[in-house]
Amino acid sequence: MDDIRSILSKVKTGEVSVDEALLQIKKAPFEDIDYAKIDLHRGVRQGVPEVIYGAGKTAEQIIGIADVMLKNGQTTILITRLSEESAKIVAASHELTYFSQARLGIIGTIPEKNGVGKIVVASGGTSDMPVAEEAALTAEAFGNEVVRLYDVGVAGLHRLLAHLDELMSANVVIAVAGMEGALASVVGGLVDCPVIAVPTSVGYGASFNGLSALLSMLNSCASGVSVVNIDNGFGAGFLASRINHR
Amino acid sequence: MDDIRSILSKVKTGEVSVDEALLQIKKAPFEDIDYAKIDLHRGVRQGVPEVIYGAGKTAEQIIGIADVMLKNGQTTILITRLSEESAKIVAASHELTYFSQARLGIIGTIPEKNGVGKIVVASGGTSDMPVAEEAALTAEAFGNEVVRLYDVGVAGLHRLLAHLDELMSANVVIAVAGMEGALASVVGGLVDCPVIAVPTSVGYGASFNGLSALLSMLNSCASGVSVVNIDNGFGAGFLASRINHR
Amino acid sequence: MDDIRSILSKVKTGEVSVDEALLQIKKAPFEDIDYAKIDLHRGVRQGVPEVIYGAGKTAEQIIGIADVMLKNGQTTILITRLSEESAKIVAASHELTYFSQARLGIIGTIPEKNGVGKIVVASGGTSDMPVAEEAALTAEAFGNEVVRLYDVGVAGLHRLLAHLDELMSANVVIAVAGMEGALASVVGGLVDCPVIAVPTSVGYGASFNGLSALLSMLNSCASGVSVVNIDNGFGAGFLASRINHR
Amino acid sequence: MDDIRSILSKVKTGEVSVDEALLQIKKAPFEDIDYAKIDLHRGVRQGVPEVIYGAGKTAEQIIGIADVMLKNGQTTILITRLSEESAKIVAASHELTYFSQARLGIIGTIPEKNGVGKIVVASGGTSDMPVAEEAALTAEAFGNEVVRLYDVGVAGLHRLLAHLDELMSANVVIAVAGMEGALASVVGGLVDCPVIAVPTSVGYGASFNGLSALLSMLNSCASGVSVVNIDNGFGAGFLASRINHR
Amino acid sequence: MDDIRSILSKVKTGEVSVDEALLQIKKAPFEDIDYAKIDLHRGVRQGVPEVIYGAGKTAEQIIGIADVMLKNGQTTILITRLSEESAKIVAASHELTYFSQARLGIIGTIPEKNGVGKIVVASGGTSDMPVAEEAALTAEAFGNEVVRLYDVGVAGLHRLLAHLDELMSANVVIAVAGMEGALASVVGGLVDCPVIAVPTSVGYGASFNGLSALLSMLNSCASGVSVVNIDNGFGAGFLASRINHR
Amino acid sequence: MDDIRSILSKVKTGEVSVDEALLQIKKAPFEDIDYAKIDLHRGVRQGVPEVIYGAGKTAEQIIGIADVMLKNGQTTILITRLSEESAKIVAASHELTYFSQARLGIIGTIPEKNGVGKIVVASGGTSDMPVAEEAALTAEAFGNEVVRLYDVGVAGLHRLLAHLDELMSANVVIAVAGMEGALASVVGGLVDCPVIAVPTSVGYGASFNGLSALLSMLNSCASGVSVVNIDNGFGAGFLASRINHR
Amino acid sequence: MDDIRSILSKVKTGEVSVDEALLQIKKAPFEDIDYAKIDLHRGVRQGVPEVIYGAGKTAEQIIGIADVMLKNGQTTILITRLSEESAKIVAASHELTYFSQARLGIIGTIPEKNGVGKIVVASGGTSDMPVAEEAALTAEAFGNEVVRLYDVGVAGLHRLLAHLDELMSANVVIAVAGMEGALASVVGGLVDCPVIAVPTSVGYGASFNGLSALLSMLNSCASGVSVVNIDNGFGAGFLASRINHR
Amino acid sequence: MDDIRSILSKVKTGEVSVDEALLQIKKAPFEDIDYAKIDLHRGVRQGVPEVIYGAGKTAEQIIGIADVMLKNGQTTILITRLSEESAKIVAASHELTYFSQARLGIIGTIPEKNGVGKIVVASGGTSDMPVAEEAALTAEAFGNEVVRLYDVGVAGLHRLLAHLDELMSANVVIAVAGMEGALASVVGGLVDCPVIAVPTSVGYGASFNGLSALLSMLNSCASGVSVVNIDNGFGAGFLASRINHR
Repeated sequence: MDDIRSILSKVKTGEVSVDEALLQIKKAPFEDIDYAKIDLHRGVRQGVPEVIYGAGKTAEQIIGIADVMLKNGQTTILITRLSEESAKIVAASHELTYFSQARLGIIGTIPEKNGVGKIVVASGGTSDMPVAEEAALTAEAFGNEVVRLYDVGVAGLHRLLAHLDELMSANVVIAVAGMEGALASVVGGLVDCPVIAVPTSVGYGASFNGLSALLSMLNSCASGVSVVNIDNGFGAGFLASRINHR
Repeated sequence: MDDIRSILSKVKTGEVSVDEALLQIKKAPFEDIDYAKIDLHRGVRQGVPEVIYGAGKTAEQIIGIADVMLKNGQTTILITRLSEESAKIVAASHELTYFSQARLGIIGTIPEKNGVGKIVVASGGTSDMPVAEEAALTAEAFGNEVVRLYDVGVAGLHRLLAHLDELMSANVVIAVAGMEGALASVVGGLVDCPVIAVPTSVGYGASFNGLSALLSMLNSCASGVSVVNIDNGFGAGFLASRINHR
Repeated sequence: MDDIRSILSKVKTGEVSVDEALLQIKKAPFEDIDYAKIDLHRGVRQGVPEVIYGAGKTAEQIIGIADVMLKNGQTTILITRLSEESAKIVAASHELTYFSQARLGIIGTIPEKNGVGKIVVASGGTSDMPVAEEAALTAEAFGNEVVRLYDVGVAGLHRLLAHLDELMSANVVIAVAGMEGALASVVGGLVDCPVIAVPTSVGYGASFNGLSALLSMLNSCASGVSVVNIDNGFGAGFLASRINHR
Repeated sequence: MDDIRSILSKVKTGEVSVDEALLQIKKAPFEDIDYAKIDLHRGVRQGVPEVIYGAGKTAEQIIGIADVMLKNGQTTILITRLSEESAKIVAASHELTYFSQARLGIIGTIPEKNGVGKIVVASGGTSDMPVAEEAALTAEAFGNEVVRLYDVGVAGLHRLLAHLDELMSANVVIAVAGMEGALASVVGGLVDCPVIAVPTSVGYGASFNGLSALLSMLNSCASGVSVVNIDNGFGAGFLASRINHR
Repeated sequence: MDDIRSILSKVKTGEVSVDEALLQIKKAPFEDIDYAKIDLHRGVRQGVPEVIYGAGKTAEQIIGIADVMLKNGQTTILITRLSEESAKIVAASHELTYFSQARLGIIGTIPEKNGVGKIVVASGGTSDMPVAEEAALTAEAFGNEVVRLYDVGVAGLHRLLAHLDELMSANVVIAVAGMEGALASVVGGLVDCPVIAVPTSVGYGASFNGLSALLSMLNSCASGVSVVNIDNGFGAGFLASRINHR
Repeated sequence: MDDIRSILSKVKTGEVSVDEALLQIKKAPFEDIDYAKIDLHRGVRQGVPEVIYGAGKTAEQIIGIADVMLKNGQTTILITRLSEESAKIVAASHELTYFSQARLGIIGTIPEKNGVGKIVVASGGTSDMPVAEEAALTAEAFGNEVVRLYDVGVAGLHRLLAHLDELMSANVVIAVAGMEGALASVVGGLVDCPVIAVPTSVGYGASFNGLSALLSMLNSCASGVSVVNIDNGFGAGFLASRINHR
Repeated sequence: MDDIRSILSKVKTGEVSVDEALLQIKKAPFEDIDYAKIDLHRGVRQGVPEVIYGAGKTAEQIIGIADVMLKNGQTTILITRLSEESAKIVAASHELTYFSQARLGIIGTIPEKNGVGKIVVASGGTSDMPVAEEAALTAEAFGNEVVRLYDVGVAGLHRLLAHLDELMSANVVIAVAGMEGALASVVGGLVDCPVIAVPTSVGYGASFNGLSALLSMLNSCASGVSVVNIDNGFGAGFLASRINHR
Repeated sequence: MDDIRSILSKVKTGEVSVDEALLQIKKAPFEDIDYAKIDLHRGVRQGVPEVIYGAGKTAEQIIGIADVMLKNGQTTILITRLSEESAKIVAASHELTYFSQARLGIIGTIPEKNGVGKIVVASGGTSDMPVAEEAALTAEAFGNEVVRLYDVGVAGLHRLLAHLDELMSANVVIAVAGMEGALASVVGGLVDCPVIAVPTSVGYGASFNGLSALLSMLNSCASGVSVVNIDNGFGAGFLASRINHR
């Protein structure tokens, strides 16, 4: 879309015809392989990994999409919500590193760490680890140094306070918690950097699959906190990386 | 109901006839004044204040109920959710102490403090004070020593930690908070006594009139925490008193 | 946290250096075994059981945590939400008593009963028994005498009234009920002690997995009632024990 | 609609033409006065009151509808949700009896009591009285003997038990309650007749304007209980009358 | 409970002692078999079937409860929500008639039809049949003549109108429908008898497991309609029988 | 946007420069008057009325927007959700026809009826009329012949059936209903044309401000029915016009 | 129902007796095969496919219904929500074309395309394809030309804009999307024809099984958009066909 | 809290006693003025404005808090949710700049713009302006350059695309929208910087006071988007400033 001007210039100079120009605007940025329209342009231009959302896709579809990306010069591909079974099939034909807890696969090389500062991923309890790891690995795959502070839920405040140094040295904090999601507010009150809160579906009864943590985080009385979808570790890691590359 | 045995005994000895006995079971414990069936028995027996829920009652109805109670020997009457206007009308004919922030009135003398320990009422923010005061005044009216810790929300953790001594010396803590309600969990993790959480309807947007704080408190990851209805300061104060009189 | 003063005193006297002190504050209260930060301090000090929340933990993780606790002198460990399969694995290496209906395991000896009075656990129907048993066993594990009144739902009021004596002699009552959760209100109106209401997810249709009972209990017209999360038998038993040890 | 056969017979005998018959089917049962299509047929045939739902109608519209009904021979008209102001305007031109608490008006004579048995209207608290009265007055207007048992909420069980005789002599019970709505279950367990539960919007916080009572009543563990809409006193009274006229 | 007077009389005459009387009040009406308190009294007295709610009970528990009932003279036992597997086990030792679609079992003889009139069970679609059958079989087991009108949903109005005669001859109608639940309103507008609406969990998407039909039925613009819980065919059949035996 | 090709052609021929072209794409279709970006292009091109959503706009803002539209050649302007007060202010300077029940104003001339067929607007009750009128007037303002069938709710089925001819002659039907919203399904089963369902916020209690009707309509068992937002009479009238101009 | 007049005429002429006429009105339009009342009339008259909703029906029931339809002259039968297993059983005895992704089967010949224009089915992502295909195949089965635009979600706007020509040439657009459902609004702002929005249950966390997309689509700020139930591809295809055959 | 080490050092050197140290930890960071505990420390240290949440505070309380801040050297104070009336009272004694649309007041001087880049605030419609302005003014008060793009809702995509240059030059984008909230996803797909989505309570019917927009934004299919509470313009502006000062 931001190429309209350059295409128009070529029309002016006669380099491309009007119809060709219109065609370029329409065809350029993606490749259509029937079950997906793959964005090629941006990924390679930015030198960052391209992402395949694995949920609801067969291993075959994932491979098909990855192949188009690789063919177009992509060197790192992140695959989220990748099941163990699909990972095995993908690994048969591609160099895949698979993280089973986070259900995340990476094809190719992980870029070097070039973010401004450190991203701290703090989580409330042991059961929040899959989501926390998805966030942490995503942030790493996008070139960030990540510090993990797990099992620092607010019911045992000293465990969190024991890591005040790490928390306060962060450039971005990702706070991952289920149940009452209070971690985001407490962390938000302790640090001066942006806090990305990730509610998890961990809990039972009136946690309503993460709704309780979600509402809690949205209502945080601490400033500087924003929220992503329940269990959306990838989204938090990705956004943290964007903030850390300002 | 616990008098069935004694009534039965009197039937045995002929002191009361069968029909009279049945009558006693039915008529004894309350007085019916058309718009209310007033429990007389328990109040006086226990030597504790009787309570009139002011919500949805006219000043006239409140006076009517109070008069029956006073006539039956009650010395302290607590009136909750009492509007400023009704308070004025009641005060015209009765010795009423009115607390406008908590919308609570007390007729008669406040009993002496005879609880086991202290009740700490902690609240998250300035706007939670009406509910916190309703809890604190109720607890006082039922004979408890109360310590108030207001505006100690978790986003400024140091304000709460500055009062660790008071918190830890409590026999019961009432944690009053709106928005994300995280105060209950943090307090629950710091103390060893029962914590009664009171969600408040303070907040906006996704706080949904206290639902967010309610869910958060129900899902507290700290043990020893239980919850009463949104804005139910009276209920928390009453329950705290019961625990403090074990 | 409550040790800050003693640590500060040692800094004063030179017993510990500043950095060592800071280290103590940070390191002391828990042991970090990668997937969990185990609180060692409080349990042993209080002479009460330590608790492992079994939900979302593998048998191996549970054993790892238990071993750290035992190594630190803990004599009783309660494991909640422990599946039959995990129980078998834990039992292979530890002296485990397993209660399958309540899905609760206890390693070590049960402390003697040293509570102030009796805890009555009342439940509405046969299907509420797993949650009721979790509450009852937890209370017993924490040193309380427990009386069980099961299947005393309000639709058959005489079954409840037949046990008025036990109810009225309680120091704390735990009322466990699904569906419409009316048991809490009725019990709350009969007794003078604190009532902890536990909504259960028993029911169908508009019970919405316990939401109906939860709302009903929160809105109880009886004073002295508070509520824990849906199916949270452990939380109720733990809190009842705290109240019973005031 | 049940007149199709008689109309068809008249077509056969030539009493009415085909087109006239079709016209009769279409036009007969109501009169169209622009803002309402008034059902005339059934009311007069059954000898029972006709009902005007006052909500959202101006006093002028109500008078207009009433006039059509009266013109067609109706002798009793019930007007629900009639505001005090509208009542005054209607009373200027019609013989109106107005019950302000129930916001219900009756034009004309109340039919004699011809139901099978008695209808008991039980309510939980003083604030539920408007809805209870709407139910009771409706039942009376439809020719039933009504017994009122107000302020018999389950938190004071003895107040309800004191009226066991009346309850057990009922042919239908209407149980009106807000907050946790437990009255329906307790009553349902005590009587052998149909129980119509009416949740009220009385309460605050997690009562969510009657949702709590509604869910509670729908999940009643007592058999023989059914539920009408929140605050629908009229609906309960009308249905009770139908059952009492079987 | 309704025996208090007779017990009191016996105390008077010396037939029973005071303690014995108290004992009788407490012990009489049920038998306690550990996992259930079985109500014996009422069933046999009324000459109607006793009901066992099969949900959440093992075949062994069901057999145990049934045996106590049979031992006490019960001749017909209805078992609801009885799985195919449990039915086989029960059938091995008892004369059980099992209706698999309605998941309902009956031990013993079905009482003769002694209701006032006919009960019509109308349902919206083929998928609502299990709930409709549970209602119909329950009504039959309690001594009622039942007429089934299935697949008469409002989208094909002529299918319903074709059965106007049956509908209008009913003494009670049970309207069973999922999705938008409009059947209850349409039927309610056509008949003069009580209509019991049963929302079903049939549907998908925004039917939210029966919530849509439930709300729709509660808001019925037709008078004389009340509602039971989602999928509660038994409750509807039981209540219809009560109304049909007025 | 659909002008890109024509603009590109002009770039080719040199009629416009590259920068000018880019400017045209950006500036052309609307006029920015600080508080609004007014779409000028489409309205005039299509020869149909332009719409101003009055909600949340002051009379002054509405006049400002209308003036820009009129200046650009627009001849008919529809203003929705226009309060009585704002209407008076607008009418002072513009030729405004105001419909108070529908809270809708029209500046200018109403276009002639040029739709394919007739649009029938059917509504359930008297209280639904404001929304029904908003739909009907909108459809008329967009050049359609409209037939109004009001107060034909499903509880009085004969009132609807009496108008079968009109219903069946419709090209599009708009079904407006609150409470249980069953009208949409019944109408959907009677006609062969598209049905647009408009839930209204009419009702009380469990109607939850239109949620009940909304869910009911979304779950309609009749095919050919789609739904717009609660109370969105304008949206239904606009869409019906689009369908009627295919 | 629309045959009442013709039947009445025959009564007039003596062709049919009154009772026979009544019988015809009742019996004519469907065949009752115990588990279903099959509508025969309309389908054949209109020359369009008849539909069997496969959900909750056994393969045997589906075959039974199809046989009645075929016997009555139906040439095309659409079976929705048909499982792979049921499809195999149906295919054994009937000429069935099965589309596994859309879980849709067609018996007989597909009618020729006779709609006014083209129907465009646009979908947000790969996971929305099953619902999109159900819509597209339904539209084709009802005689429409369909253009598929899949994976054109709003996060990659250029993919949608690249297909502006197809979008703008549509007579009806079906917009299928899960997650935030923004596709409907964006498409609604680009085209001048009716847009039918289909929310899908694709997503996780706060998508609440399609609720998020549903609400989003109902609140679309674009005019001309209406919504069908979550995942209701059939409904959208059917309605689009109706609009395309005006 | 981050001063513990420095305080400990002073204990070591004897500069402060143990008790004094403990006192410092507790007393330092805030001043307690009965109805509020005002944080003094951080504000002045960081050289950024201090914030007073005006909601639920009287003008007198606001002045009291402001005075403490000013006394402690604060030069800029932001007051959110400040009513027109309160603003007048505050302005009587302080140099207040009041923005009525955003209900925001600023005491003192606005700091110079020292952020990394520009913050773009985009909003969907005219009615979203109050929230958008709250965000924009907050960002400006915290030292950021702000670009406003208002009324660029997705239903008129060209209005948004016309500002692609501004959007793409942003360092952070705040997307403010009610109704379906699609703006966040579309913007998120166009830019490479962090997007903070602010749902507004603008809308009606199924927008449920902002719930629709909130869910939509949480489910955004675009990466790099996070969400703050409904109508929380301040929160978005504050967070954007933090990101823009990395």
